[in-house]
This record gives sequence, C-alpha cells and structure tokens, in this order.
Amino acid sequence: MLTNEFYSQAMQGPYETYDLGSFALEDGGTIRGCKLAYATHGKLNRKKDNAILIPSWFSGTSKIFEQAYIGKGRALDPTKYFIVCANQLGNGVSSSPHNTPAPGGRGCFPRVRIGDDVRAQHELLTKHFGIEELALVVGGSMGAQQTYEWAVRYPDMVKRAAPICGTAKNTDHDFLYTQTLMDAITSDPAWKDGWYASHEDVHVGLRRHAKLWAVMGFSTEFYKQEVWRGLGFSSVDDFMTNFLEAYFTAMDPNALLTQAWKWQRGDVSRHTGGDLKKALARIKAKTFVLPIDEDMFFPVRDCAAEQKMIKNSELRVLKSICGHLVVVGLDPDYLRQLDEHLKELLSLPA
Amino acid sequence: MLTNEFYSQAMQGPYETYDLGSFALEDGGTIRGCKLAYATHGKLNRKKDNAILIPSWFSGTSKIFEQAYIGKGRALDPTKYFIVCANQLGNGVSSSPHNTPAPGGRGCFPRVRIGDDVRAQHELLTKHFGIEELALVVGGSMGAQQTYEWAVRYPDMVKRAAPICGTAKNTDHDFLYTQTLMDAITSDPAWKDGWYASHEDVHVGLRRHAKLWAVMGFSTEFYKQEVWRGLGFSSVDDFMTNFLEAYFTAMDPNALLTQAWKWQRGDVSRHTGGDLKKALARIKAKTFVLPIDEDMFFPVRDCAAEQKMIKNSELRVLKSICGHLVVVGLDPDYLRQLDEHLKELLSLPA
Repeated sequence: MLTNEFYSQAMQGPYETYDLGSFALEDGGTIRGCKLAYATHGKLNRKKDNAILIPSWFSGTSKIFEQAYIGKGRALDPTKYFIVCANQLGNGVSSSPHNTPAPGGRGCFPRVRIGDDVRAQHELLTKHFGIEELALVVGGSMGAQQTYEWAVRYPDMVKRAAPICGTAKNTDHDFLYTQTLMDAITSDPAWKDGWYASHEDVHVGLRRHAKLWAVMGFSTEFYKQEVWRGLGFSSVDDFMTNFLEAYFTAMDPNALLTQAWKWQRGDVSRHTGGDLKKALARIKAKTFVLPIDEDMFFPVRDCAAEQKMIKNSELRVLKSICGHLVVVGLDPDYLRQLDEHLKELLSLPA
Repeated sequence: MLTNEFYSQAMQGPYETYDLGSFALEDGGTIRGCKLAYATHGKLNRKKDNAILIPSWFSGTSKIFEQAYIGKGRALDPTKYFIVCANQLGNGVSSSPHNTPAPGGRGCFPRVRIGDDVRAQHELLTKHFGIEELALVVGGSMGAQQTYEWAVRYPDMVKRAAPICGTAKNTDHDFLYTQTLMDAITSDPAWKDGWYASHEDVHVGLRRHAKLWAVMGFSTEFYKQEVWRGLGFSSVDDFMTNFLEAYFTAMDPNALLTQAWKWQRGDVSRHTGGDLKKALARIKAKTFVLPIDEDMFFPVRDCAAEQKMIKNSELRVLKSICGHLVVVGLDPDYLRQLDEHLKELLSLPA
C-alpha cells in the first residue's frame, strides 16, 4: 500500500466506508476486503423515499458534491433529501490500487467496470440503509455513466435520473481520448508498470495527462475569452501549473488508470447483447439528459441521440463556456441552471 | 544528416530546390545552404500575372496538392495558372533538421517562424521567377497561417487570399494542443533531445503523437458514423495503425517538432506590435476565409472573428464531417465545395 494524503479523511472527509467483503468483479477479478466510501447529507425519512444518489466522476470524490452541489434551498437540499455521495471503486477513496493490500493492490489491482460500481452502491443502499427506491440518481461524466447503468439495471428502483455530460454507451472518439490520457501516464518511465514507490515520482506523466485535459476539458472559447482570469490565474501557464497540474499531480496514477479503463468501457448495452435501444428502453425513471453545450468529448448530439431512446425523458442542454470541466463547479451560472432543472425533475411525479 | 526515404524525390517528387544561401531567421538562427523545395504546375504567362502559391501545412509536402487539389477543369487549373507549391522550412523536404549538415542540423536545427517561410517563398517568386503579383495564395492549416502572413506582409503583391481551416493569430487553445503533440514525441526516451540515429527509433512517441491527431484531427461524428469504413479500414484500431500511425511514423520527429513550434507562434500581429486588427487591416487581397464546420481546433468562430477584421473578405464555411484533416483530401465533397469557392474567388476582379 502507498500513502497519499490527497485521499485522506482530512482532505476528502468526512466519509464513511461500507465493507463489501470479497467483491467479485464483472471482468473476473476480486477485490478482497473491498471498501465503498461514501458521504451522506440529510436524513432518510420513515418511508425511505427521499434518497438521492450521486456517484463520482473521473478523478472526483464525494467531497466536491458537498462543496459545490448540495445546500439548503438548492435542488440537492439536505433538509429535504437523504443524499448519498458514492466514491467509485478505484477513485482513491473507495478501494483502489494504492490502498488495497498486496497481493491485489498497486500494479495488480483488478479491472473494474461501471456495473461493478453500481452493484456495490446497490448493496450499500439496500443492505445497509434498507432503501428500496431512489428519488433521484444524478451524476456527471463517469457519474452519468453510473446513472445510466443504475436506471437500466434497477429500473424499478430509480424514480428519476439526471445524467449530466455523459453517455450510456461510451463512443469510439471518447475511447481514443481516454487512451491518450492513459498513455500520458504509462509512457512516463517512472510509472514502472504501476510499481512506483510514490505518486510524486510519476509527476511528469501526470502533468502530460493534465495538459490533455487542458485541451479537451474546457472549450476553445474558455481560452479565447480568458475565463481563467476570473478563476484567479494570471496566465495560461499559471492556470496549467497551479490549477490542472496541481489537481492531477496530487492523485494516484494507478487510480486514474483504473477509472480511465472503466470510463472507456461504460456501456449499458452489455445488458442486452449490444442493443443500446433495447437497453435504454428498460429505463422507467423520469429522465433529464443534461449535456453541456461546449463539451468537446460528450457533445450534445451524442447525448441527444441517447435521450431519444428513453421513453420518459427530456433533453435539457446546459450552457457554459467552460465546457466539460464546468462540472467541478467553475461557473455559478451552470450550477444555477442545473439546480433549476433538478428542482423541476424532483417536482415531477415519480 | 539522416536518411529518410519519405522525403525523397521518389516519394514527394518531382520537386525543385531554390538555394537561399545563408538564410537568417527571425528568431536569431541561420540555416546555412538553405534550400526551399517547391513543385510547379502549369506555365507562367508573359504578364506574369497568373501565379498561384500554395504553402504546405503541418506534416504536409508539396505532393498532396498535386494529388488532391490541382487538375484541369478544377479551380487550381494548371492549364490556366502557374501554380507553385512550396514546402515550408522544416517540413523534411525543404531545409530541415534531418537534411541539414552538422553543426546546424538534427537537434541543433534553429527555430523557424511563419515569417521566415514567407520571406523565403517571396525570394523564390520574385528573384527566381520574376513574379510581382500573385493571383491567389491558398493554403490550409499552417498553410493558412502562411497565407495570412503573405497578405499582411506583402499586401500589394497578393491579389486574392484563401486561408482554409487556419488562423492569422494562433489561439491559446491551439498552442496547448500543439504542445501535447510535441510532448508526445519529446517524452519518448528514444528521442534523445533530438539526437536519435533514425526516426524509426522514435516510433513509440510518433504513435502517441498520431493518437492525439486521432482525437482532435477529425470530429466526434467521424467516429460515430464510422466514416473510416468508407476510407477502407475495418476498425478504429485498423484505421489508427494503418492510416494515422503509418503516416506519422514515416516522418522525422525533429521535422514535426520544428513545424509544431512554428505553428504555435503563427501571428501576423507581430508586424503591428500585437495589434491584430491593425495587422489584418493591411490586407488588400480579396479574401475568402474558409473554416471547416467540424474543425475542433480551428473552430469557425475563431476564423469568423478574424474575417470580420479583413476589409475585402467573406466567410465561406466548408462542411465536412471529417473535421480538420479533411484537408488531406479525405472527402470528395469538401474538394468540390472548395473548388467552387476558389473558382468564384479567382473570377473576382483583383
């Protein structure tokens, strides 16, 4: 195991952990002593029908939802709802390469799929909390992949679904982009096939990885209009070093690789022999599909094509010049738009 | 010097070379025995007013114009015009890292700027051919950068200009993208700070570089609609290996780096103390600005913003699902659209 302060209770907490025991994975591996880390906000009511689930995105943890998305008077209101923020397996907080004991950790951590995350979260919600229905599942990017997986896998349990800037079946273009993210890390000789002594040794690869996010994670207009100035940076270089590189170099390279591999293969049509239409037809949830207009790798048209296959759904396009990474809360107006859509969705009969 | 068959007469010819002697560069270096390689099609008329110049794009050579753009009955008609296809300095055919003798070659090849290319081409056209006016300068991508530089630097000489999918001043976003292209190569330990014994040694870095082109060089729809099938490939992997990787691994890594560094810094406002409006106001050429609707890194809006600053100009958007790399001639309909625009432009009084 390796120490990485970024994933500690001090940085990402408070969070709880649920013990999944020996958790067998879709791709054949098993995580022994598997821990699902989660944070809750608000209280579960007597009828246990006020629960909202928020799964995490690539590189994200449960903390960001507390910081940017949840609050009294907002859509995700902890005075009304019992909100469970789940850390996806491999994200560094739940069971992950760096915190899993030998022989199954670090470079030997097994492949995890979106379906594994959703099964793990299902066990937490049903066995630990006794929850049988979810008022809402909402998540961005890989959180949207998990949201779709939830709605397809457990259609009777999910009453409402709000996938933000993500798809039910990952595209070929997205697969290629994610591959460049992985290659940026694995091409660093310090990565050593996953057997580095500290994530800090791999900082050059992590910085290259951050640069690819700089290109695809925002929009051309984000740079044209120098939106980074308003975020407190003095130049593009300053923004790169002190925002994106600072963010990613704190993380565990193997955790990012585990998540990227999973992202590449997100696909609800695994349930229906590759038939996406059939898979999405299973969804019973009232669904708002929420792409971001300037997203470069989950473009509106890809999300809209999937939305058309979901019976009880609407397309709600979020506008932000920031592009995909606005999900981390960079633009108050994005959060305002999202809150409006989610309030409306939550007000609709289940 | 290194041998690289890709740049030979057998592969890229027939081409001529013009001797620029000791060519002093804007950034302080000098290429000694500097050679500008070019190919011509058609004949210069008595009045010497039927010349068209086509500068090359990143990784491209003069050959592609012969193969895809020039032909009897087309806009670039060699029975009407004297067409000069110029290889930009550092592209592997003109003076470049691999073909420049020590001590100024390979890892010591100096920095070249777009302005250097245009001055070199100007010397060829005026001194060698005695040409004092150009009926048209047309180029794509870095060829568009050179087209803008021509129209700003020699406004009386350029009668018509057609910059395709490129900008007069490179954007910050484009700079970042180009940096990832460079990092993909320089991060390969086999690159050895530019002192590899053969370009083949650096194939891993060149393959990573090719993958970044796969993500940004086409469009999300190109993959969604599997346009690569129509190009004769059986899968995305097959397309990657036998098209993009095959294309780039044949090239000299230092040549790509020289061009990328130049691309990053393309900026006609260097003539006017950073005032882009003032620089573009110098243009006298009748100008058609020709972005591609699905271009991910020279988006239409960036090109349109510059077009508005050019007096005698029009915005003509080319439509192609292929995105930026359609310039290599992937889509017959793109060539048809372009030909129409260029025929119209050439028919307008200078």
